[in-house]
Amino acid sequence: MAQAEKSETKQAQALHAPILMKRAEAEVIRALRKLGKISRTEVSNITGWSKAKTSQEIRSLVGKGYLVEVGEGASQGGRRPGLLRINNQLGYLVGLDIGATSIDMVLTDVGGNVLQRCSALADVRQSPDEFFSRCSELILQMANAQGCHHDQILGIGVGVPGPVDFSRGVLVAPPLMPDWENFLIRDFFQHTFPAAYVVVDNDVNIMALGEQRAGDGVGVEHFIFIKIGTGIGSGIVSNGKVHRGSIGCAGDIGHICVDKDGPICRCGNTGCLEAMAAGPAITEKALQAAKNGSSPLLSQMMEANGGFLRPEDVNAACREGDQAALEIIRASGQMIGDVLAGLVNFFNPSHIFIGGGITNFGNHLLVSIRRAVLRRSLPLATTHLAINFSRMGPEAGVTGAVALAREYLFVIEDQPFVIV
Amino acid sequence: MAQAEKSETKQAQALHAPILMKRAEAEVIRALRKLGKISRTEVSNITGWSKAKTSQEIRSLVGKGYLVEVGEGASQGGRRPGLLRINNQLGYLVGLDIGATSIDMVLTDVGGNVLQRCSALADVRQSPDEFFSRCSELILQMANAQGCHHDQILGIGVGVPGPVDFSRGVLVAPPLMPDWENFLIRDFFQHTFPAAYVVVDNDVNIMALGEQRAGDGVGVEHFIFIKIGTGIGSGIVSNGKVHRGSIGCAGDIGHICVDKDGPICRCGNTGCLEAMAAGPAITEKALQAAKNGSSPLLSQMMEANGGFLRPEDVNAACREGDQAALEIIRASGQMIGDVLAGLVNFFNPSHIFIGGGITNFGNHLLVSIRRAVLRRSLPLATTHLAINFSRMGPEAGVTGAVALAREYLFVIEDQPFVIV
Repeated sequence: MAQAEKSETKQAQALHAPILMKRAEAEVIRALRKLGKISRTEVSNITGWSKAKTSQEIRSLVGKGYLVEVGEGASQGGRRPGLLRINNQLGYLVGLDIGATSIDMVLTDVGGNVLQRCSALADVRQSPDEFFSRCSELILQMANAQGCHHDQILGIGVGVPGPVDFSRGVLVAPPLMPDWENFLIRDFFQHTFPAAYVVVDNDVNIMALGEQRAGDGVGVEHFIFIKIGTGIGSGIVSNGKVHRGSIGCAGDIGHICVDKDGPICRCGNTGCLEAMAAGPAITEKALQAAKNGSSPLLSQMMEANGGFLRPEDVNAACREGDQAALEIIRASGQMIGDVLAGLVNFFNPSHIFIGGGITNFGNHLLVSIRRAVLRRSLPLATTHLAINFSRMGPEAGVTGAVALAREYLFVIEDQPFVIV
Repeated sequence: MAQAEKSETKQAQALHAPILMKRAEAEVIRALRKLGKISRTEVSNITGWSKAKTSQEIRSLVGKGYLVEVGEGASQGGRRPGLLRINNQLGYLVGLDIGATSIDMVLTDVGGNVLQRCSALADVRQSPDEFFSRCSELILQMANAQGCHHDQILGIGVGVPGPVDFSRGVLVAPPLMPDWENFLIRDFFQHTFPAAYVVVDNDVNIMALGEQRAGDGVGVEHFIFIKIGTGIGSGIVSNGKVHRGSIGCAGDIGHICVDKDGPICRCGNTGCLEAMAAGPAITEKALQAAKNGSSPLLSQMMEANGGFLRPEDVNAACREGDQAALEIIRASGQMIGDVLAGLVNFFNPSHIFIGGGITNFGNHLLVSIRRAVLRRSLPLATTHLAINFSRMGPEAGVTGAVALAREYLFVIEDQPFVIV
């Protein structure tokens, strides 16, 4: 085999999985993921291996550093069995959550235990080269602080604020950062972190995944995670799996029509949910109320801010009992609830989790959303429906990003796309 | 074990699966389902069994009647390997599709090959006892015609026109037939067909399943099947699996709001899609056009029909070039398209299949639906979206019902709910 071919093969493998396994080994890992710890006898039951072969294969898996022995299990009458678990010190994972104006990241062991955190302001209007170079530097800083070498990083999960072609790991027509379209995020990171498998997904999808793995979504089969901030988007879990849709843009509910006669949205249509109910619409209406005199408090705030208002000002005014601010927040909640009502009929989730900057708006918003959903959804679909703010805050994104990287850590060698 | 306990256990097993298997046997069945035929060597690779054990286990599976030998595969250098496949003559399956006014059913072998068909008029306003007694009789007639004994029927898949709690196999708050709520359809059929596993699902879900198994939905990961007739409902496939939602009522899109100022729907809300665009709304508007003189042709038809109009009359008038009829059909298409546009943004399917009585309306309806979806969905979500009438007609329902019964034919013995 020529040198060039060889390195290409190597690269393709590195691209597909940091750790390739035989099918039976994969069964052991799968069981460990589910159960945490298992005994040699359980390994033998799962794989169908003889006692001798089980001992030999486990020795090999421990030798490679994939598994470790941990204490002893309860005796079944004979010798107390030594238990096995995945070796969390096998390497490191990174979870990276990119927002329009911020980066949140964590470094974890392969068990997903957080070792180091990093948050920074950022601007996605930068070129992708500049932006991701900075991300790489920040990852290296986190790694250095833990004494982790760059090639010990085995997986990087990345959430980006735009539609993602999940199979290729690239952004498709991202409205916030058109320059990033088709930028090879995977290849970029693998240049610096050659041992890492890089998985890229939409930011709300990773929040949904985070909620499912470590939040109130644990064990929930069907839910919608909705993020409300500058824009409005959602992540969908169906039958326990993230539903990304045929080209990865599922969940893009910000441009569902609320009012055909509404204002023109940046997408070109009229009356989109995002244009009428998200952060900018709220501040825009608040500015009107400040200017037309219907809210003296908002006028005062606007003057103090040099002619501007932020969503948190509207929230503060509402808390002070300002009627105009309250009405603005209620109207947003109602429009969001009207759209969710249709989606509840269609999708029949048991839970809706609400995250993003607007969650600080508290009960007035939540009550308006709930009321609109209850009024317009079928009773059957809402009897057991819970609508709540996510309690994870910014943890949802990074947790989901790490979970994504972890999913692809072990891959069956002759089936590169089957996750263990 | 006391006699009563024993028979209870037996019943519970019969309820959960006609054929219980060991995990390794199940792996063989799973591979056969996917590949059709496999060799002994492949069986050995899949299960990890030695050559001797493979021979022994296959002998046992053939002895039980689950597998049969079929011809010989291509030689890999040595003796030509004997191939195995699932024994289609193991027993029979029934697919039963219940509509508001009709029953369609098929009798198949366990491979899903149709042996006998039966269609009949029916009325779901009958008591469930009367209705399902008649279904049982019709099934027995089909079975007799094939020389099939009632306890050779190993599975019955049933589609019903209402929301189904899938895990319990009962209807929940069905608007068309309130008497059927919580009626134990499974138990009823198992009385007459003791060997059959009975699976009950919503009628549009089984149409979606039929489209996925034998129609243009084969191999499609994410699609929506929409049924338009007296009502409007949909079946959803996400990641290749039917999405039924948390209590089984997913897809109920008929009551999504189209116009807040629209007419009052039977659900109590205003401007529901079903109230504004389904069959009865179309005939209602046509009657108005007939009465107010805006369509002389519809007036003529109304008089000929004794003061009534059916959807097919509106269709016929449209084909004759009647402008009022055309406008009525276009308006329905546009409203359906407006709702689908939002669902396309949310769900990002690659295909929408349209079925049900209204599909006879042809191109005018289809073009209006497509136009509305394209106008209001995000370009990213519609670039590769195909919207077409299902080409399966009434086959979709019975095919899906049989597929459902077939899914539950073999079940792993210590995991009663894991389908092979």
